[in-house]
Amino acid sequence: MSNVEKLIKEIKELESNLSEKDFLLTWEQTPEELEKVLKTAEVLKTLRNENINTNVFNNGLGISLFRDNSTRTRFSYASALNMLGLAQQDLDEGKSQIAHGETVRETANMISFCADAIGIRDDMYLGAGNAYMREVGEALDEGFKEGVLPQRPALVNLQCDIDHPTQSMADLAWLQEHFGSLEELKGKKIAMTWAYSPSYGKPLSVPQGIIGLMTRFGMDVTLAHPEGYDLIPEVVEEAKKNAELSGGSFTQVNTMDEAFKDADIVYPKSWAPYHVMGKRTDLLRANDQAGLKALEQECLAQNANHKDWHCTEEKMKLTKGGEALYMHCLPADITGVSCEEGEVTEGVFEKYRIETYKEASWKPYIIAAMIMNRKYKEPALVLEQLLKEADKRVK
Amino acid sequence: MSNVEKLIKEIKELESNLSEKDFLLTWEQTPEELEKVLKTAEVLKTLRNENINTNVFNNGLGISLFRDNSTRTRFSYASALNMLGLAQQDLDEGKSQIAHGETVRETANMISFCADAIGIRDDMYLGAGNAYMREVGEALDEGFKEGVLPQRPALVNLQCDIDHPTQSMADLAWLQEHFGSLEELKGKKIAMTWAYSPSYGKPLSVPQGIIGLMTRFGMDVTLAHPEGYDLIPEVVEEAKKNAELSGGSFTQVNTMDEAFKDADIVYPKSWAPYHVMGKRTDLLRANDQAGLKALEQECLAQNANHKDWHCTEEKMKLTKGGEALYMHCLPADITGVSCEEGEVTEGVFEKYRIETYKEASWKPYIIAAMIMNRKYKEPALVLEQLLKEADKRVK
Amino acid sequence: MSNVEKLIKEIKELESNLSEKDFLLTWEQTPEELEKVLKTAEVLKTLRNENINTNVFNNGLGISLFRDNSTRTRFSYASALNMLGLAQQDLDEGKSQIAHGETVRETANMISFCADAIGIRDDMYLGAGNAYMREVGEALDEGFKEGVLPQRPALVNLQCDIDHPTQSMADLAWLQEHFGSLEELKGKKIAMTWAYSPSYGKPLSVPQGIIGLMTRFGMDVTLAHPEGYDLIPEVVEEAKKNAELSGGSFTQVNTMDEAFKDADIVYPKSWAPYHVMGKRTDLLRANDQAGLKALEQECLAQNANHKDWHCTEEKMKLTKGGEALYMHCLPADITGVSCEEGEVTEGVFEKYRIETYKEASWKPYIIAAMIMNRKYKEPALVLEQLLKEADKRVK
Repeated sequence: MSNVEKLIKEIKELESNLSEKDFLLTWEQTPEELEKVLKTAEVLKTLRNENINTNVFNNGLGISLFRDNSTRTRFSYASALNMLGLAQQDLDEGKSQIAHGETVRETANMISFCADAIGIRDDMYLGAGNAYMREVGEALDEGFKEGVLPQRPALVNLQCDIDHPTQSMADLAWLQEHFGSLEELKGKKIAMTWAYSPSYGKPLSVPQGIIGLMTRFGMDVTLAHPEGYDLIPEVVEEAKKNAELSGGSFTQVNTMDEAFKDADIVYPKSWAPYHVMGKRTDLLRANDQAGLKALEQECLAQNANHKDWHCTEEKMKLTKGGEALYMHCLPADITGVSCEEGEVTEGVFEKYRIETYKEASWKPYIIAAMIMNRKYKEPALVLEQLLKEADKRVK
Repeated sequence: MSNVEKLIKEIKELESNLSEKDFLLTWEQTPEELEKVLKTAEVLKTLRNENINTNVFNNGLGISLFRDNSTRTRFSYASALNMLGLAQQDLDEGKSQIAHGETVRETANMISFCADAIGIRDDMYLGAGNAYMREVGEALDEGFKEGVLPQRPALVNLQCDIDHPTQSMADLAWLQEHFGSLEELKGKKIAMTWAYSPSYGKPLSVPQGIIGLMTRFGMDVTLAHPEGYDLIPEVVEEAKKNAELSGGSFTQVNTMDEAFKDADIVYPKSWAPYHVMGKRTDLLRANDQAGLKALEQECLAQNANHKDWHCTEEKMKLTKGGEALYMHCLPADITGVSCEEGEVTEGVFEKYRIETYKEASWKPYIIAAMIMNRKYKEPALVLEQLLKEADKRVK
Repeated sequence: MSNVEKLIKEIKELESNLSEKDFLLTWEQTPEELEKVLKTAEVLKTLRNENINTNVFNNGLGISLFRDNSTRTRFSYASALNMLGLAQQDLDEGKSQIAHGETVRETANMISFCADAIGIRDDMYLGAGNAYMREVGEALDEGFKEGVLPQRPALVNLQCDIDHPTQSMADLAWLQEHFGSLEELKGKKIAMTWAYSPSYGKPLSVPQGIIGLMTRFGMDVTLAHPEGYDLIPEVVEEAKKNAELSGGSFTQVNTMDEAFKDADIVYPKSWAPYHVMGKRTDLLRANDQAGLKALEQECLAQNANHKDWHCTEEKMKLTKGGEALYMHCLPADITGVSCEEGEVTEGVFEKYRIETYKEASWKPYIIAAMIMNRKYKEPALVLEQLLKEADKRVK
């Protein structure tokens, strides 16, 4: 039995309620549901690599709504839609009439008559992004129930204020590939640490996503950041609870050195101070440009106190055998390359550059797997059919 | 025989010249042609609801040119293209070289080498939008005749200065669904009335489209608006002529109350004063920003004299049994929701909200039906083939 | 044997290394490789005209990166992707995070996980556009070699600072169609001449592309421009070398009259003075808006000294039998139509207008042929399969 057949068999055996709910936060999904998405992604990646057609839709729209700039998430989402046979259609709020009084409830229905997926990135407003997605989800539920929509589109969280599930799940898929299995991750130490960057307003969703997910699989997760760079307290609580349940651990320390010590994996990345993100949300809402400018200066000054949070060759020596796996969601702020002083030295980044690309390469498959698990109660049966038909993707 | 088979049989029997002309104004089409589009839309909607693949193109582009902001029309058009197998491609005049001296005639050909449909929204300039579409149509005719284009793309009027045929036809399809048949619409009273809105420059094409189309089917159409909010005189003449021919009636009154009296259907909606739209066209052409600002003020002041044109629970009581169907092309200006004072109260809107969504849900199918009827002399044969093959849309 | 079968047989017999390299400059390809692309385009055009489906991809993205405005190249590229079954996805640098420190190397990989083609237009910066494309190509090579990318996307040069190969190849395909064969082009005189235009900053890539390509097929190529409007010296050297090898000729003259004398084909078109393009590159890099404005004035003043470089009926009388074929990449600056004084009179342009549209109509097929030759070692086998299956494009 090939690896794909084995995976499909495993997918069949996993209990899941994913076809009945939107995947908005990883910690709302059971371990079996997370595994089901991972394995679906693995099958899709293998099929594509073997030039087997993965279209499960003959037509249908996949809508995207990006409330923040994006390259890789935009292309990952477009790739995911395309590999399933959906056509991408952007909801550009600037070009639409949304400003003129359309409600979320109404818009959600108006764009969805022929939509099988809606992906949303809404990460700028603390306390608002995830809530917005749930509002859209409820509108879609109503539309479907009332017979307005012939199908309930899958909602994909392409990054919110709380979690970045397509990123953290892609990261997990990469760790699984790199270390051989989820089982192998048990007891491995991952250091999610803040790092200095001369930029401002980076969302908290990546570190939150990482501590929220990696604690589910028995890993030893260590979070480190300078004072004032806290994450949302509820997410930290979630991480603690997860670690306990999964037999791993969750530790908070105050220096990069402590975090890196004996780590198997390091994830040094900048994010904005918590109180700055809160203030920024208020200022964005008030469209207070002067206030935003002043806040940026304050934030950059605060960041500049922590330039020693720098992932250097020396710091890497502290890790397990000096050879921890370096991870990043990209783009990284590379000292001397993309900025004068940043998150990581050119040497460290270059050593792991191809690995970070491979990490990123999982995202399209994770998104496609999320859509399939939302649209099908039994995605395994559809994957089986694709494998059996074995249509070529490219003639 | 299923309902779809019956519809296909009926489509076969309807005389039509739609494959030889663009559907730019409903009153240029015969009653049989209008029915043919309605029935084609109904078949497409049913096939899709039954998960039957409706792709009739293996590839081909559908181009859109939006000269005004749009959400629902944009997505309806994208949905229509997608359900037929075409790929949407936006002609963004900002990103193109059109400003640099390309003529309409040339551009129409340059974008159409692989295009099967071109949808245009051009509703801001009184006297210009529909004329522009005809200019594009003639260029496509020439290109096809001269062997430049291997196919003649279907031109779709996504709203012009005169008519909004995809809207009015979707509205008609909804009325047909709601009341059971076109036959049932005979003698029903529909009140197309102006309503107050704190906005300016809304096109006349929706009310014009409604009085131009609904008078074709023996309905009693009543138009009401305050002084100064006339529609294009030629369209009003058209409505009168239509009513006479179809055995219905066309009446003009001066108050909302008179219009609502015993109505089966009400369609209260704001539009700009006629003379304002004319002046606005001149100012837009001259790019006179100060002039436009002054005109906006004038228009808003004029609107404000008519805040009593408000679709309230009380006004609804005047209608047949107090239970007329409320219609709107959306987004509506809802008092206390999307604006302080608007076209309709929250209570009335909420009562009919799901109905307005269902009304809107017809638009993608109407557009697809228009394209099919332009591209095929016998769309029934193609629909029959789709039904027979019964490929699944979603695996 | 039909014409298509004959062409497919000929494609099989042509030696080519096109599946191993990007088609970035026509003079880097052998004559057999150029013929292979021409014939592939011819087969695709014929298949489409006969309503035979040309999808060779069941899914896959085709990415476009336009660093300059574009209508026809944008739509030609979109058409090419669509006729092969790829979905177009725009990399909009404004909406992306590229400004925030992503390197070319990284971005090239991040957008390509599911990409089969990447088309780039980068013609504004002298010395930079083609170099940028090569940088992208190397990044894609690395990504493919390292296992980051499951496939190596075809890179398409949609116009750079040096060459405009999709334009010049489409022009060649048109000449082949018009005169009957490549063989017939031998000894034909083509006049590539500068013409006056009240615009500034037009790239040099069209005239460079024409003299670089037409000298490959035994044509007598004459280049004419006012003093100061030189092309890149290396390209002129290339043209001289080509002419020698192909048995044609390459001549430079100083007046439009000399160039038009006895010409079989004329290609009068404006471009920017060489030194202006160099200065402009520096100013664009420095984002020196005042400098750019001053340079524009200087350039326009210089242009205005040469208004007599005007393709008139009189000038056309100088050509072979007064009936030379007029060519243009469009849009042309037509005197009295798109500008007060321009490149060509309305009379001359109108006489050849449909011919210029037919010239342009080749571009989608040329681009598709380039992609097919990059993706397949033996495109003939795939074309043969399409012909044999003979699926309908439109039902």
